[in-house]
Amino acid sequence: MTMNVLGYATHSPTDDLAPYRFERREPRTDDVVIEILYCGVCHSDLHNARNDWGHAVYPMVPGHEIIGRVLSVGPTVTRFKQGDHVGVGCMVDSCQHCEACEKGHEQYCDEGSTYTYGGIDRHDRMPTYGGYSENIVVSDKFVLKVPDGLDLAGAAPLLCAGITTWSPLRHWKVGKGSKVAVVGLGGLGHMALKLANALGADVTLFSRSKGKEQDAGRLGAHKVVLSTESEQMEAVKGRFDLIIDTVPYIHDVNPYLSTLSIDGTLVLVGYLGGLEPLLNTIPMIMGRKSVAGSLIGGIAETQEMLDFCGQHGITSDIEVIKIQEINAAYERMLKSDVKYRFVIDMASLKG
Amino acid sequence: MTMNVLGYATHSPTDDLAPYRFERREPRTDDVVIEILYCGVCHSDLHNARNDWGHAVYPMVPGHEIIGRVLSVGPTVTRFKQGDHVGVGCMVDSCQHCEACEKGHEQYCDEGSTYTYGGIDRHDRMPTYGGYSENIVVSDKFVLKVPDGLDLAGAAPLLCAGITTWSPLRHWKVGKGSKVAVVGLGGLGHMALKLANALGADVTLFSRSKGKEQDAGRLGAHKVVLSTESEQMEAVKGRFDLIIDTVPYIHDVNPYLSTLSIDGTLVLVGYLGGLEPLLNTIPMIMGRKSVAGSLIGGIAETQEMLDFCGQHGITSDIEVIKIQEINAAYERMLKSDVKYRFVIDMASLKG
Repeated sequence: MTMNVLGYATHSPTDDLAPYRFERREPRTDDVVIEILYCGVCHSDLHNARNDWGHAVYPMVPGHEIIGRVLSVGPTVTRFKQGDHVGVGCMVDSCQHCEACEKGHEQYCDEGSTYTYGGIDRHDRMPTYGGYSENIVVSDKFVLKVPDGLDLAGAAPLLCAGITTWSPLRHWKVGKGSKVAVVGLGGLGHMALKLANALGADVTLFSRSKGKEQDAGRLGAHKVVLSTESEQMEAVKGRFDLIIDTVPYIHDVNPYLSTLSIDGTLVLVGYLGGLEPLLNTIPMIMGRKSVAGSLIGGIAETQEMLDFCGQHGITSDIEVIKIQEINAAYERMLKSDVKYRFVIDMASLKG
Repeated sequence: MTMNVLGYATHSPTDDLAPYRFERREPRTDDVVIEILYCGVCHSDLHNARNDWGHAVYPMVPGHEIIGRVLSVGPTVTRFKQGDHVGVGCMVDSCQHCEACEKGHEQYCDEGSTYTYGGIDRHDRMPTYGGYSENIVVSDKFVLKVPDGLDLAGAAPLLCAGITTWSPLRHWKVGKGSKVAVVGLGGLGHMALKLANALGADVTLFSRSKGKEQDAGRLGAHKVVLSTESEQMEAVKGRFDLIIDTVPYIHDVNPYLSTLSIDGTLVLVGYLGGLEPLLNTIPMIMGRKSVAGSLIGGIAETQEMLDFCGQHGITSDIEVIKIQEINAAYERMLKSDVKYRFVIDMASLKG
């Protein structure tokens, strides 16, 4: 039997989000039925709701930073039981048989992974709806365990902002002695600082504006470099093994290239589009430097990140809101007026 | 005592190269004095001679693909003796104490390596002059052994075209089962095919024009893909672990990105400048792909490459010319009319 669920949806690029009732599928044998407690508000929720990337499907229930409690599990599910605290991130399924899936890189699934909202379920072809809702039904393979002791609301953004920065930190082998810089101090950037610091790296924040020192230091940066000050940029020339660039809009990455060490990599995790001004190959060739991209992370890697956060007591800095405040929250996000992530307390849906 | 040497030099961006006499330094204790037998003609010789990159110093004696015979060695030189066949590549010195030098990456020396021509000697501040000449005096650390049995003329281009393609093949760990593509079939491209094939990779040539199949196959390509044919490009989507892009002029790298596998890298070795049309980050993010650069290779790595070529009987495909033909050869290079490298027989200088 399908489940009738209350959520918040938008019906067009210009509509506000508003209450919306829809059907969740009848649980399959490998499904976990989850009562959603908290859902983080990712920048991509806003981009998707407003069809900024051109492939929106309406009605759309956004939300892919989901923390909840297990209500029931299907007969083949062994890893979860009623009452467990669990998480769901950006994906709820993938082909499970391509090379990428077999390597645990479901986010790079050859056939495309099934996104938590705005996607189509691979089995029953029903649209997927996200975490701005009471309940969600997800195959156990895409459900994460939330370590005991983590603040549940603060853990929600780990499912996207956390894993998106964790995955490149791990892939490029950041550890003790690594020199890491982070461009941009938003939802992703503040997680990158925390995670890189906890991994033992020497951590620098690149900022375009003054006054970030105190926050950056508290979040894990050992240093802040004003990218608008040529002297400060010159002083870190050739320094960084890895730069995680979280800026979600078009920006010049060339000044950062000269701050990479030989064999260093600048990895873009926030910006989809053409690199303008033109990317200059000279510093790349003159120091075997790379510009790369990275997308969220695989499921095993997400569990690894959650476990690491459990051990180190890492959660996101959040502002908890009611679901009724979501449209105002989107407006504030557009002005970068959030430190550093909104999280919806889903109890408000019942209020 | 300095040595008066005959070579060919240009005196301005528009002058032809012509006979020129100049002084080589009095050999230092660690120097090797080399009689030059052959010198390859690299595209960058032409760029430098004509000041295309804006930092030419005249008079300029080009040439950095040097094969010669040892005439004498300084008292501290132990690795070479009179009569040895040796090579000299793009560099004749570096600081020898920075991190890059200590790792054997002299080409990325913090202070800048000393180029074989157009540079300034770090010790006596004399200008450096290249291989279009009778003799050269080089510190033993920057002299390479030429394995017995290699054709000496064909070995000359290994010192630049060979190492420039070898270094990325090794850095990105190409071996049996690797899928490698090469963009461009010139001096660098044809060496990339030979070396990648000998390393056991599955090798593809990307070409913009038909009719390369036979040559490409003979040089080591298992397949040729016409990059202008969308069906052929679609058929290799997601295929390559490493693409070596040897094209020396501005060109669109975006079509090649989609042919990279997850975690694949496109490495630019030929083009210095801005990437236009704009580099699109979407395929990079959607498959953790990288765009990188690479510059020649270190000295130990160059020796490794020469030894590998000795074991596998690999040399460059060349057309031997007299030094008197150098200006005509430059004109032919501009029309890509060479298969695949001109090499000057330096005996012609005496003719």
